[in-house]
Amino acid sequence: MATNSSNGANGAGNKGSKFDPNFTKAVIDLMSPETTPRNREILSSLIQHLHDFCRDVELTQDEWVVGVNYVNAIGQAYQKNRNEAWRVCDILGVESLVDEINHKVVIDHLEGLPPTSSTILGPFWSSETPFRELGGSVIQDMPPDGQKTFFHGVIRDVDTGKGIPDAVFDMWQASTNGKYDTFDPENQSRHNLRGKFRTDEQGRFYLYCLKPTEYAIDTSGPSADLLSMMGRHPYRPGHIHIMVTHPDYVGVTAQLYPDDDQYLKTDTACAVKEDLVLHFIPVKDEKNGATLDVEYDIRLASKKYKPDSTMLMENANQNKFKL
Amino acid sequence: MATNSSNGANGAGNKGSKFDPNFTKAVIDLMSPETTPRNREILSSLIQHLHDFCRDVELTQDEWVVGVNYVNAIGQAYQKNRNEAWRVCDILGVESLVDEINHKVVIDHLEGLPPTSSTILGPFWSSETPFRELGGSVIQDMPPDGQKTFFHGVIRDVDTGKGIPDAVFDMWQASTNGKYDTFDPENQSRHNLRGKFRTDEQGRFYLYCLKPTEYAIDTSGPSADLLSMMGRHPYRPGHIHIMVTHPDYVGVTAQLYPDDDQYLKTDTACAVKEDLVLHFIPVKDEKNGATLDVEYDIRLASKKYKPDSTMLMENANQNKFKL
Repeated sequence: MATNSSNGANGAGNKGSKFDPNFTKAVIDLMSPETTPRNREILSSLIQHLHDFCRDVELTQDEWVVGVNYVNAIGQAYQKNRNEAWRVCDILGVESLVDEINHKVVIDHLEGLPPTSSTILGPFWSSETPFRELGGSVIQDMPPDGQKTFFHGVIRDVDTGKGIPDAVFDMWQASTNGKYDTFDPENQSRHNLRGKFRTDEQGRFYLYCLKPTEYAIDTSGPSADLLSMMGRHPYRPGHIHIMVTHPDYVGVTAQLYPDDDQYLKTDTACAVKEDLVLHFIPVKDEKNGATLDVEYDIRLASKKYKPDSTMLMENANQNKFKL
Repeated sequence: MATNSSNGANGAGNKGSKFDPNFTKAVIDLMSPETTPRNREILSSLIQHLHDFCRDVELTQDEWVVGVNYVNAIGQAYQKNRNEAWRVCDILGVESLVDEINHKVVIDHLEGLPPTSSTILGPFWSSETPFRELGGSVIQDMPPDGQKTFFHGVIRDVDTGKGIPDAVFDMWQASTNGKYDTFDPENQSRHNLRGKFRTDEQGRFYLYCLKPTEYAIDTSGPSADLLSMMGRHPYRPGHIHIMVTHPDYVGVTAQLYPDDDQYLKTDTACAVKEDLVLHFIPVKDEKNGATLDVEYDIRLASKKYKPDSTMLMENANQNKFKL
């Protein structure tokens, strides 16, 4: 398919390479005319980048075999509640990047702040989380070291700054042991630390939850080997997951992080963004016993800016994604 | 870790992107100072190319989840004699490219032809292949549709053109059913269609083998799904594997293909190179009953051109490659 008679020739995108400048195009051109345009676009780019990577670092055969073994090991570590390829993507920043690619709302000539940033959904969202009354608590099972927090804010229109009534504020968080309800039946009842709230006429939401605490991802298996190779720790900063939706607005899925968390700049899932931080203030004699108060407003963009916006959970039937 | 306040800014290597231009560097910079220089080089390039791929095609979340599931499926399909990640690499041209990167011998100002091209080793080489006498046959079990071939040539010094005595010419091939001896115990005895030969004083090798015939790689599993998505067939052109070694020369591992094979330009493993083709000539009344004759000379470069050359089989203890 390729020639070896072109030593020293330069191919586009492969400048000055001593390797066959026609090889990558030859592999891409093996695709038949029947390949769908989108598959062709994705696979052409994948092949080009994969080959450029090999050439850029002049990958040795030993290193390539390490890579082959590593890819096999990812799938071998897969279990029902352990999606190893997903974890590896998180560590390499891919889930976070794909989230940005799909959910960034760019508004030209906006006065004031942009819409609240999106960040990764993670694997722990539940479609069955119950609605709770405004001012209610998601803490069904209080851990001994938990810090009860009054969490409140306004969901605002990014253009007008006005509150958005009837928006749905869905939140979930791990307990202080780093586990979510469904993975911790010994300590947590179902829907512990989860709740959906509907904003009032002023667009306000308010509830009681825990100050979120950091936890490590599972440190066995190939994802942990990758962290180790890079000298990185396995910790995620504490975070409260939120998913905010309204029929007339582009929804946002994000995570909110305490501004004093030690892992804010080195999140193992590369999912922290500057505008997603919370400042917790100690309070005394709060009427429901909270020891911390945190206020955070969310800014949503009208759907006119992104009419085709969808959220991952709307398509969360994994079966349809299978090849 | 990254900011979302830089809409429209341009990062190096990410020109004109509407996405955060600092994100990829931030992920790369998570590596600790203790990361070895080579790991840092490889992982930095891997992260850069992976991110550029996602941005270039603006990968959707659905497509990303297809990719996550696909990577998991590769390892799940792994079995003792089925290295699925290796196969996927072959289909994408990666093994062939890595082979070129590692084995290309570039000689400036060479008069005449360059050294014989290298191509992929494949998974069927055996360290236990026996030496046979020059003029012997590797056909222990003749298939009914086999075509006995007299295969001969000279292993030459690429500079002088002179024959190289005492070079080892190791060859192996599948039978006409597409299977190698160890994977076909019902039809083939051990070492069938394999042999090592030592060149004579004139550098000649000569032996009897089969004309190689095309075969399909296993068409179940993720590698076949990838072929299907690209509209590609699963066939490899017929080929004779060779591995030629001599203490004073850069060895070569290659595959030789009949010039009339229908899959020469569309090899599923992307491993054909222009100088690796054989022209078979019909013969009559050959003294040992061959019906075809093929001549092929091999050109080796002195080790002075590549003193650090090694061959994959010298390191073929897979355990040491594990992470």
